[in-house]
Amino acid sequence: MKNGFCVWFTGLSASGKTTLSNLLQKALLERGFSVEVLDGDIIRKNLSKGLSFSRDDRNTNIKRIGFVANLLARNGVAVIVAAISPYKNIRDEVRAEIGDFIEIYLDCPLEVCIERDPKGLYRKALAGEIKHFTGIDDPYEVPEKSEVVIRSHEESPQESLARILRTLEILGRIPALHEDGYSEAEAEVIKKRLTDLGYL
Amino acid sequence: MKNGFCVWFTGLSASGKTTLSNLLQKALLERGFSVEVLDGDIIRKNLSKGLSFSRDDRNTNIKRIGFVANLLARNGVAVIVAAISPYKNIRDEVRAEIGDFIEIYLDCPLEVCIERDPKGLYRKALAGEIKHFTGIDDPYEVPEKSEVVIRSHEESPQESLARILRTLEILGRIPALHEDGYSEAEAEVIKKRLTDLGYL
Repeated sequence: MKNGFCVWFTGLSASGKTTLSNLLQKALLERGFSVEVLDGDIIRKNLSKGLSFSRDDRNTNIKRIGFVANLLARNGVAVIVAAISPYKNIRDEVRAEIGDFIEIYLDCPLEVCIERDPKGLYRKALAGEIKHFTGIDDPYEVPEKSEVVIRSHEESPQESLARILRTLEILGRIPALHEDGYSEAEAEVIKKRLTDLGYL
Repeated sequence: MKNGFCVWFTGLSASGKTTLSNLLQKALLERGFSVEVLDGDIIRKNLSKGLSFSRDDRNTNIKRIGFVANLLARNGVAVIVAAISPYKNIRDEVRAEIGDFIEIYLDCPLEVCIERDPKGLYRKALAGEIKHFTGIDDPYEVPEKSEVVIRSHEESPQESLARILRTLEILGRIPALHEDGYSEAEAEVIKKRLTDLGYL
């Protein structure tokens, strides 16, 4: 059985979490992993219907995702979570619970997310039709120690994916293939970052 | 990777679900399976805090357990669920969703459960201190097509466990060991039952 782990995408709505989750899922399946994607919206439907977007209820939702991710990861599944997960303390709580945890922060400016707005949610939030919307009238607490920071407005999804895979290789979560288009110089940058953060 | 499946224990509080779950967990671990036990109480704490014991909320709780059990089972885990799960339609819904599903009905008379009452819950329910308690003021809908029926007041846990394991062997969920103390005649009885119910 392969060792499981959890890759946790955090970031504003429309920052690119779902796009990268799907690309990463495909890449990990090709490498022979069992993969499950826990998408925030799907989890809300199946595990958290009735919860609001208050701070307490958001935390409860994230803890539930963490509980399920942990069950899967400890049974050898590569779990990919895509959830706004705006509050730092709960992200850190889930990291501590799961252990085999890699955080990826989608660092996309709010203006870009508002411009993208694929579900029309920002429009509604700005019109006051949705309350407690992250970035509008609810805070997003920027992560300080994410293993990977993705500026999705400045690089292509394929470039981001390559960096994520190389990071997972360097961290020993997945076998190194050296086929993901990253130079040694770029790998050194990743290694330095992970070392500085205390992950290597 | 081994094929996952879900063994679902249903029955009144104090009917013996937890005892048998733990024995089955041990036996399946010894046979090399990855095993997770989803206990009703633990799931209520982690996935369903705030839900009441109304019919709707009980159904929501069971559906959540089913959702998680399915995620695990389809990734090769032997999932054991121990939950009263009193309503037939939701049990059947979960069975349909998971597919690799084996239901075990703990058929223990209410009087025996009240006599056992290890958590003092029946006492409280009979005193009116707990409402919507299954068997007291909330119904338990008896399963008609459980793969195994256990009369825990008439046989030892070890006897029940042997019958469960033999049933899993006959259904092809686990490799046959023929070391679990069951005679061929007894196996024939199990085979006939499973055939009559349409599971073989």
